[in-house]
Amino acid sequence: MASKQVPAVAVRDGIPTPTAVEVAAELPLTIILNDMEIGTVLCTPDRLEDLVVGLLFSMGVLSGTDEISRLDIDSTKGMAWVESGSYSRLSVQGGLKRYLPSGCGGGAGFYTLADARCQPVSSQCIFAAESIGQWMSEFNHGSQLYARTHGVHSAALAGSEGLLVFREDIGRHNAVDKIIGRCLLDHLEAGDKAVLTTGRISSEIITKVARVGIPLIASRSAPTALALEYAADLGVTVLGRYRKSTFIVYTCPERVDLEVRGENGGAMSFS
Amino acid sequence: MASKQVPAVAVRDGIPTPTAVEVAAELPLTIILNDMEIGTVLCTPDRLEDLVVGLLFSMGVLSGTDEISRLDIDSTKGMAWVESGSYSRLSVQGGLKRYLPSGCGGGAGFYTLADARCQPVSSQCIFAAESIGQWMSEFNHGSQLYARTHGVHSAALAGSEGLLVFREDIGRHNAVDKIIGRCLLDHLEAGDKAVLTTGRISSEIITKVARVGIPLIASRSAPTALALEYAADLGVTVLGRYRKSTFIVYTCPERVDLEVRGENGGAMSFS
Repeated sequence: MASKQVPAVAVRDGIPTPTAVEVAAELPLTIILNDMEIGTVLCTPDRLEDLVVGLLFSMGVLSGTDEISRLDIDSTKGMAWVESGSYSRLSVQGGLKRYLPSGCGGGAGFYTLADARCQPVSSQCIFAAESIGQWMSEFNHGSQLYARTHGVHSAALAGSEGLLVFREDIGRHNAVDKIIGRCLLDHLEAGDKAVLTTGRISSEIITKVARVGIPLIASRSAPTALALEYAADLGVTVLGRYRKSTFIVYTCPERVDLEVRGENGGAMSFS
Repeated sequence: MASKQVPAVAVRDGIPTPTAVEVAAELPLTIILNDMEIGTVLCTPDRLEDLVVGLLFSMGVLSGTDEISRLDIDSTKGMAWVESGSYSRLSVQGGLKRYLPSGCGGGAGFYTLADARCQPVSSQCIFAAESIGQWMSEFNHGSQLYARTHGVHSAALAGSEGLLVFREDIGRHNAVDKIIGRCLLDHLEAGDKAVLTTGRISSEIITKVARVGIPLIASRSAPTALALEYAADLGVTVLGRYRKSTFIVYTCPERVDLEVRGENGGAMSFS
């Protein structure tokens, strides 16, 4: 259950009325990798397989689903057990201690690990601004859970066929990790896809997206300065403050086809 | 510098214009406690003293500013050095490994530690709905950094004198930690104060607020179900989805004076 009804008092124009409201569920999920406790994420209890796979990949602990020999999740107990013969090649404890701090924090250790393993995105894909606009429009209307609870972030994976994966979570990082996890589990080609998110774009979000090889991220919210430094280095196109056909292209604008109609009706290309 | 100008392309109704936009700065700040690396938080590089003190208190590592014998911060290097003779009474490594995951995650370890040290808020303070409304109005207009960057959260400490402390950060947890840190540094009485925040109210936010003894939190955003369980247990009043005089009281409504004028103009008290 991703949400729950709770009793509350609704106050409208100063008038209180006892009522029931729907709030987002929040599950502490502890991840055990080869009998070692990795940490606990607070998350929305759905699509936990996507979350665990995406999180371990984003952390640099695993480089793909073929490295996972077992993945069991008990959402009632809030436990995920992962077995892999490959994890030991990374200093998991060192990486995790500093990785998991995303949101509240994040780590120098994470950056080091991530940077060492994160190559610039090589995709030559060009995205039509019109397509991105259609995705964002569909994306913005996609979250029924947000409409009911006002307490979750959404993320989506988009491509030439439209929105391919749509995930929600109380954590903006988790929502993106769920997208990445599903992308890996379904062996989707990443180089011609875009990530859409409702959350702010911080440096860690850029590293996640670059690591899986996705060349573009778009958000209604804004990026940070450090996120843009990373995006420029890693070749990720960042679009932010998206409102209908009004938005800002922060990095790598060459990947967005901003062809617009000129006053005489002819095509006019921006470069 | 809490923000930075970057070159970008603004697209309005499909028309691209090269421009400069202001984005929120993001600093990785590594905290060293008694020569031991605690972790790294990604934060807005201002009021770092408040952040470090608030964070260490929220983590349960320190119970007050009198336990800190040294606090040096170098924002250029992104380093904070804290010395304390008291920290060893807690398992810092165990607590931190799982604490720092706030935002993206959070830890069973944190809960255990926090719960063991977190008593229900004993304040008998009653807050007039009208006062809270005035605070929220002032609070919502308070963030110039948000207006310029669209990339930060705000938090404030409010009391009978109005807004006492106002802080901003790219992380919603950090903004609240900055409030708590300043509250401790200035030795402010917590029992008659309220925390205002722009962020979602998750379980960790409730624990932070309860730990310092603040009885009420109000947000324009929504709480999670687990946050409300904690709030009910810890005696914290949660107000959410605040829009002018319209909001929801989720827990402990007895602490909010919802006196309203009846149709005949007389006072009418809700309980």
